[in-house]
Amino acid sequence: MADPYVVDVPLRWSDMDAYGHVNNVQYLRLLEDARVIGFREWFPDRPALLDEGIVVTRHVIEYRAPLTYRPEPVEVDMWVTRVHGAGFDLGYVVRDPASVGDATYAVAETGLALYDFAGARPRRLEPAAREALAAHVGEPVTFRRAGR
Amino acid sequence: MADPYVVDVPLRWSDMDAYGHVNNVQYLRLLEDARVIGFREWFPDRPALLDEGIVVTRHVIEYRAPLTYRPEPVEVDMWVTRVHGAGFDLGYVVRDPASVGDATYAVAETGLALYDFAGARPRRLEPAAREALAAHVGEPVTFRRAGR
Amino acid sequence: MADPYVVDVPLRWSDMDAYGHVNNVQYLRLLEDARVIGFREWFPDRPALLDEGIVVTRHVIEYRAPLTYRPEPVEVDMWVTRVHGAGFDLGYVVRDPASVGDATYAVAETGLALYDFAGARPRRLEPAAREALAAHVGEPVTFRRAGR
Amino acid sequence: MADPYVVDVPLRWSDMDAYGHVNNVQYLRLLEDARVIGFREWFPDRPALLDEGIVVTRHVIEYRAPLTYRPEPVEVDMWVTRVHGAGFDLGYVVRDPASVGDATYAVAETGLALYDFAGARPRRLEPAAREALAAHVGEPVTFRRAGR
Repeated sequence: MADPYVVDVPLRWSDMDAYGHVNNVQYLRLLEDARVIGFREWFPDRPALLDEGIVVTRHVIEYRAPLTYRPEPVEVDMWVTRVHGAGFDLGYVVRDPASVGDATYAVAETGLALYDFAGARPRRLEPAAREALAAHVGEPVTFRRAGR
Repeated sequence: MADPYVVDVPLRWSDMDAYGHVNNVQYLRLLEDARVIGFREWFPDRPALLDEGIVVTRHVIEYRAPLTYRPEPVEVDMWVTRVHGAGFDLGYVVRDPASVGDATYAVAETGLALYDFAGARPRRLEPAAREALAAHVGEPVTFRRAGR
Repeated sequence: MADPYVVDVPLRWSDMDAYGHVNNVQYLRLLEDARVIGFREWFPDRPALLDEGIVVTRHVIEYRAPLTYRPEPVEVDMWVTRVHGAGFDLGYVVRDPASVGDATYAVAETGLALYDFAGARPRRLEPAAREALAAHVGEPVTFRRAGR
Repeated sequence: MADPYVVDVPLRWSDMDAYGHVNNVQYLRLLEDARVIGFREWFPDRPALLDEGIVVTRHVIEYRAPLTYRPEPVEVDMWVTRVHGAGFDLGYVVRDPASVGDATYAVAETGLALYDFAGARPRRLEPAAREALAAHVGEPVTFRRAGR
């Protein structure tokens, strides 16, 4: 089982909302950035995997601690929690590399499906992509709330 | 059991991403708007419930159909799926009021916790708020994917 | 000279930043919405004018008063300040329809150029579009600061 | 006259709009980031200058070339174009450090005013801040379009 892949994701001052914390919706934006940055390394020869069709089918996210803007990026641990014929799931932990003690801001999972936009239909995950993903498979995400 | 509360939520052209569809993260933004608009009616005498401390603890969202910008708002059905001592959960269906047939763009659930920002600690849900919520209690959200 | 065209533009709670006011950058987002909504009426037979190629070449905006989120939309007065061979300029006033007295949040101007994305070159403004624009020509924008 | 101060500003994939380019409004968001990052260095002992009250009074921006998302940041040259009793103006050039030839995406100017939020009134620029700004004074911004 692989170590999680770590992506540095910069914050923006505008990620904060009127409460003065990074807005809960923006956490998902940070995860999008983590995927975009990370997939370039995971699939170096296959930009098509991303550009020609991958769609988000679901997100689950639990918020653990408030986050305020700082110039230093947050760290996102990202790994594969499931691979199936037409897509795969990712797990994430959003962490603070500079902090000691409990520095987990959120844990999350995203379902992704390959899609053929031109043909408007799902695509199969090709063997080369399955292989690339296999290097990043890890444990299921540990959510606090069971069930969904 | 109450009928779902329906909120008209306007889209913005900028909700679309480079794929030409409303971005998956922006769906959560639409749900935020639905809460802000809806809670003013649900808690007319209690703006403090919102302004002085309610935090999102989790989101689960499943995407069902792509959505493209149009000037007409989408409809968000919003109801209460659980009430507990320190918060409550909301269920949503994002729908197209103008469409016939399957017009569900997403189903989702949000966990909310009352929080005393000044005292930096959770707050109890007061009886008046429990009563207001009781009028909006409905079925659990029907997700396609069981468990997580 | 025509009366300004008036567009109702809804705010979002997330337009506010950590200072608790609608963020200065989001005002430009509101103007984008005003154009998208307004142009559908200005050019009912010519969606191509918008979809196939119009680019923003410049913005000038002066902020006059802070704006906080409310469920009611703001009003954007929008009119044409200049028409030339390859594009046109728009003037705007962002106002509060419900307010008495000085209720101007911002005044602004946007330069727009027609562009042929497929051919990667500027396009000429066609006679029908010039005619549609002529109905909306108004005064120059009155900025406080002369020159730039 | 000082060399421009250079800030690396990361892009986000979501900065692109449905046309597949970084949206014109998002350029202003990049400039906001440049200010937030840069001011921490310009005013190391005076975070209050920023946190307790500085408001944007105007923006002028001219777009020079389309920008598409890439993982490398853009470079923003930032300098002071004017200092007055209650605020100052900044000039910017948004550039591509990796490009040869014409790699200017935009030039812009922002008016900033010091503001006492608690007292709801303008503030005077203190001598220490004037001094910090003096180190960054440069030429006026060269816009293509004269006047505004």
